[in-house]
This record gives sequence, structure tokens and C-alpha cells, in this order.
Amino acid sequence: MDHAATSPLLPEVLAAMRPYFLKRFGNASSPHRFGREAKNALDESRSKIAAVLNAESEEVIFTSGGSESDNLALLGAARASKYTNTNGNHIITSAIEHPAVFNTCKYLERNGFKVTYAPVSRDGIVDVDEIERALTKETILISVMHANNEIGTIQPISKIGKLARERGILFHTDAVQAFGKIQTDVRELGVDLLSMSAHKIYGPKGVGALFVRKGVRLEPLIYGGNHERNMRAGTENISGIVGFAKAAELARAEMRSEGERLVRLRDKMITNALRIEEARLNGHPTKRLPNNTNFSFRYIEGEAMVLYLDAKGIAASTGSACSSQSLQPSRVLLALGLSPEEAHGSLRLTLGKENTERDVDYMLEVLPPIIGKLRKMSPLGKGIKFAPSEGFEHEEEHEHAR
Amino acid sequence: MDHAATSPLLPEVLAAMRPYFLKRFGNASSPHRFGREAKNALDESRSKIAAVLNAESEEVIFTSGGSESDNLALLGAARASKYTNTNGNHIITSAIEHPAVFNTCKYLERNGFKVTYAPVSRDGIVDVDEIERALTKETILISVMHANNEIGTIQPISKIGKLARERGILFHTDAVQAFGKIQTDVRELGVDLLSMSAHKIYGPKGVGALFVRKGVRLEPLIYGGNHERNMRAGTENISGIVGFAKAAELARAEMRSEGERLVRLRDKMITNALRIEEARLNGHPTKRLPNNTNFSFRYIEGEAMVLYLDAKGIAASTGSACSSQSLQPSRVLLALGLSPEEAHGSLRLTLGKENTERDVDYMLEVLPPIIGKLRKMSPLGKGIKFAPSEGFEHEEEHEHAR
Repeated sequence: MDHAATSPLLPEVLAAMRPYFLKRFGNASSPHRFGREAKNALDESRSKIAAVLNAESEEVIFTSGGSESDNLALLGAARASKYTNTNGNHIITSAIEHPAVFNTCKYLERNGFKVTYAPVSRDGIVDVDEIERALTKETILISVMHANNEIGTIQPISKIGKLARERGILFHTDAVQAFGKIQTDVRELGVDLLSMSAHKIYGPKGVGALFVRKGVRLEPLIYGGNHERNMRAGTENISGIVGFAKAAELARAEMRSEGERLVRLRDKMITNALRIEEARLNGHPTKRLPNNTNFSFRYIEGEAMVLYLDAKGIAASTGSACSSQSLQPSRVLLALGLSPEEAHGSLRLTLGKENTERDVDYMLEVLPPIIGKLRKMSPLGKGIKFAPSEGFEHEEEHEHAR
Repeated sequence: MDHAATSPLLPEVLAAMRPYFLKRFGNASSPHRFGREAKNALDESRSKIAAVLNAESEEVIFTSGGSESDNLALLGAARASKYTNTNGNHIITSAIEHPAVFNTCKYLERNGFKVTYAPVSRDGIVDVDEIERALTKETILISVMHANNEIGTIQPISKIGKLARERGILFHTDAVQAFGKIQTDVRELGVDLLSMSAHKIYGPKGVGALFVRKGVRLEPLIYGGNHERNMRAGTENISGIVGFAKAAELARAEMRSEGERLVRLRDKMITNALRIEEARLNGHPTKRLPNNTNFSFRYIEGEAMVLYLDAKGIAASTGSACSSQSLQPSRVLLALGLSPEEAHGSLRLTLGKENTERDVDYMLEVLPPIIGKLRKMSPLGKGIKFAPSEGFEHEEEHEHAR
């Protein structure tokens, strides 16, 4: 139940990748047969990703993953701005971006750029009016994520896209969590730049892509050979790219049915988890990814819940895996207006293909006693009386792994 | 015979990677079991790469490949220089670097840095005295490749390392072609930064590493989560990294025996190819990679040779795959003092594990008639009389693929 962190490769994806490891292992820049095979695979994969985006093939630039895509979008646009007509130094983003956008903005602030971090509502939706108010003549780029990685909220990207287009400002969206799960039609969204990652949709780690609308100029992050329309040097990771394309194709085919299935499981999880005392749902009740739930349980630490759940055979998370080494409360949850104490008690459960209703039932069985136990131990919970939760008697079943 | 461009994955490498696709697919930043498995694999892989380098584990930073490693070294050191004591703006490199170093230097020149491109001798060895003469008080970085990607020449890295250490100047070497083929002991070489790539040594594409000596500060290329000692954000490509480590381990174990075998094949190729009229060996006769040969055959185009060889089932190259889309003569060969016409007639044959003596014999059988035929067609060859080469009568055997 930690599919927002990563997902297993689908066997079909590995099967698609396999020939490109051992037999068709060529370098796509080589003119001989091995090279041509690799080039063909690269071209086909690019078309498949483009199809999911309603983009043209040449608008897809392969990268090493979502973080690189976000950095290429932001740094590439910021650094290229001095060669273009729009030589401003102001960027607008949201307060709840992934670290790959947030920390890149912090770097840009240290290097002559001004960044506005637009606030979000209590349920995690970016306020489009705030973005409009933040616009200045110096604004060169807006970057607002499509769906949040912690709380799953889906942002009003089309509205922001309309705003950006009217002003001729570049618009980037980090769609790492959205791509393959909900519609990401770049024309409908009105974006110039859109980041994707393969390993969030049952594809391989180490591969991602950036949609770069025709005519948009980016300064590369990586210089070298003439790969990827001179925007990203380096021998293309053909097996990884083929796997990404296969995963995207499968995700697209199953988006509706799998999305509906996950929404049912998600909503069952939400309804039942909120029966636990002093629980709140973080993020919007309906404008959220089909697979995302995020709760705060007062008086306890999310980290402890994750470890107790792990002992029960359940993989869960407090928030972004990318910040899990830090013991700071989630920046995203604080931006929603949660107190640090509430933010510390967060639990993110993100569902995926392998999860069944039985898994949700199992989670709802083991979670209340874990929370009860932690609250008993917690100095924060002292003196507060909770009704004993159902299923409490199972708490010692540490061996029930799956 | 194009192993410098890329190499197939070894079955043992794929076997090592496989569990990390389907079962142990965790995100190394997650605190649960899946995450811990991934973290363990990451740590073990880092140790294995460090062992080949005679480095410490934490000195190895995983990247998406050789080009990223080179860029992280150069841009990271250049951008960090303003925070360190050595706030100069001068960089020394060689005239025969890979595009990932050369084009990064060109970018730095457009952004306030001065770059000296130290010349090389006629046989492709960098002149250490020239590097010493180029040093100024402003010099912050020297970057000289360990072994050249086109002509295979091995550079006097230890000597340059000594020079750099005496002056307290950072020293980077692009060891993408050297790593796993010849010794790359970072203490003996005296380097601060060393770039590696997996797919040149029968590992997967899309993964590489940069050795970063303890205490060296680099500004990242990619901002985001706290991965790789805050020098490189992005979910680690665990299967790729495991494959890279396995490939490096195997390369290290077989370095001596395989190196000796390849030197014998290489030298047989060189001796016999030089019997072709108007042929020259590019690069040094002995100070070159065990698997590299590079010839110039006058009056013809390397590109045409490659296509004719392809029709005979042989993968060959004119030079770097990374510049193969360009019809410019090789920058490396021009730096050796070759005329553009000589440089156009270049053929790089780089041997690998699958190549046997039979392959070399087959190449030596099919190459002379191809050259003879091309010279007959070439306007450059008009009026020049060549003795008919042996094996000429086989020239129509286009179907002999292997």
C-alpha cells in the first residue's frame, strides 16, 4: 500500500524489455543493424508515450526519471530564458510541490530568481486566483503539479494552463503521480512541459520523460552527444524506455477500469479509517488520485505506525519516500494548515494493481489496534481516553505477513 | 566489433538484476521491508563499485550514465567553486575529450569560464608539460580522460594527478572506456572525480557512477530528495545499479585474462589491417585499450565502410557513436593532426567478450575487398592504382551475416 513510492514491474513489461538487454542491445546512435534496431525501439516507444499524452512523438524527451524531468523543465526554462524574449526572473509554483520542484526552486532563488509559492486550500487544492494575482511582467514560468504525491489532490491544471497561455508564460506540470492514472492530455491541460516517471506505473526505475511542447527552448542539464533533440545527452536507456512505453500503454488501456476499482477500494478505506477517533483525511475527499488515501491520527507518530504495519506485512508510508529520511513533519501537510503535531501523525496508503478488497479489510483490521497501542504509549495521548477499537485483540499477530 | 559504443548485457548480470524488477522492487528511501531490501542492494552495489576503484563506498555516487557523470563532475565542480576557497574560472582539459566533457566545457565557456584545450601528440597522448604550462592561479579543475573512446589511447593520468594534487586543483577523469578494462585505482591515479558507465562493460544502459573523493563539494545537476549524499536526487535505479555492480565485479575478476586475450586479437587485427595500402593506425601502438583499433584508409569514407561491413554482418564504427549523426570528420582525429580527408576514412573496431579469433579472421577477409571496391568508386581514389586485395571475389556475399 505504498504505490506512490514505487511499484513492481509488470511481468509483461519485463517481457517487453528483455530482448533489449541480450540481443537487441545496440546503441541507438550506431548506423549498423544493432543501432537501427535500438533506434526503431526508441522511436516506437516515443510514439507510445506521445499517444498517452495526445502529443507528437518529437515532443517527448526521455530522461532518467521524474526528478530529472522536473529539473530539466525548471532549470532548462530558467536558464534558457536569457536567450528568449521573456527575459524575466520570476517563477510561480505551489506550496505543495514535490522536492524535485520545490528544491529546484530554492536553488533558483539562490541564483537570482524570485519564486512565489502559491498557497493551497485546507483540502490541498491550489488557488488559481492566487496564481493570477502573483503574475508579474517578470514571470517566465509557472510550475504546478498535476496530482500531489502525498495527499493525491488533483490540481486545476487546465485553468492554470489557460491563464499561462493568455499571458504567454511557460507552464510546467509535474505529472509523475498522475501520468497513467488519470487523463494527461497535454492539449486539454494547456501545458508546455509535463514530467513523467516509469516506476510509478509498473515500469522500470531510472527512466522518465519530459513532454516539451514544440517550439519551447530548454537549456540542457546534461551536455554531450546529440541525443533527444539536443536537450539531453547520453546513450538512451533502450530497455528502460521500451519498458516505460509498455507500462504506459498498459496503464492507458486499463485506466478507466482500474481507476474505478481503485476508487471503490480507496473510498472504503477512507470511510472506515475515519471511524477511528481523532482521525482526519488529508486532501480533498473526491478531487484526489483513485489510489491515494492520506490520514492524520492525532497523538501518534506516522513513522511508528509505518513500522508496526511493516511488522504486520503491510508497506505504508508517512508521506513522500523522497523525504522519508527526514524527521521533519511533512511540508505538504503544514501547507494545508495542519499543526506540526497533526502532520507528524500522518499515514499515506496508496493502492495499486495487486491490492484487493481483502487487503483493505486486512488493513482496516490491523490499523485500529496499532493506533490504540501507540496512543497508549504516547506522551501526547496521556490522559485521553479512547474507546477500545475493534480488532484490538489481534495486535500480537506479528507473523501475519503478506 | 563496436563494443566501445555499447555491449550486450551478460546473462549473469540480467540474472542479478531480475529479482529487483519483480519481487524486491522497493524504493530505497522507504522505511518498510521493501525499502530496506532496496537499500541493502544499493549499499552492497556501492561497495562493489568502490572495491574496483580502491575507493570508499560513500565516495561512489550513482548516476544515469557516463554523460551525466561527466556533467556532474564538471558543472558540479565549476558551480561549487564560488562557494569554496578556489574561486577561479579556469579549466584545463584535452583536445580529444568525449562530447560529454567537450560540450560541457563549451557551455562553461559561454558562461564565464575559460577553458584550455591541451593538445595531444600525433599518436594521441596528452602532453603533461602542456597541461603544466597552462596552469594559472585561476585554474580550478583539470579534466583529462583515462582512455579515449575513439582511438583507445591511455593517458598519463597519474602524472597529471600528481601535478593537480601539488597545486590543490581538482582533477577529473572520464574513465567510461577504461573502467573495467584496465586498472582504475583512484589513489594511484590521484583523481578527485572519475566517471563510469555500466553499458560499456556488459551492464545495463541508463546507469553510471561518479567517484567523488571525500571532501570534494559539487553543486548537483538534479535537485530534489536527499539521495546520493545530496549530490543527485531521484529514486535510485536499483535493478540497474545491481546490474552495474555485477558487471563491474565480473570485469574486475576477468580483467587480466580477458585483457590479454583481447590484446592478442587487437594486435593481430592491427598487423594485418596495416597491410592494406594507404592504411594508418590512429592512436598509440601500445598505450591503448586492449580492445581498441582505429584505422584510417585513404580515399574513402568511413561511413561507407561501416555500411558495407554491416551488410556482411559486422558491426563497426567510424568513431564515437555519440557523434555518428554528424558528417563532420572526427574532432579527435583532427586533433592528432590528420587531414579532414584522412579523418573521414576512419574505421574503429572495438573487440569484446563475444569476439573470437575467427571474427578477426573474417573481418580481415571481408575488409580489403570492401576497401578496394570503395576506392574504385571514390572520386578521391581516381587514377590511383591499388593492387587487387585478397578476398576480393567474396564481395557479393551480402548474406553472410553473423
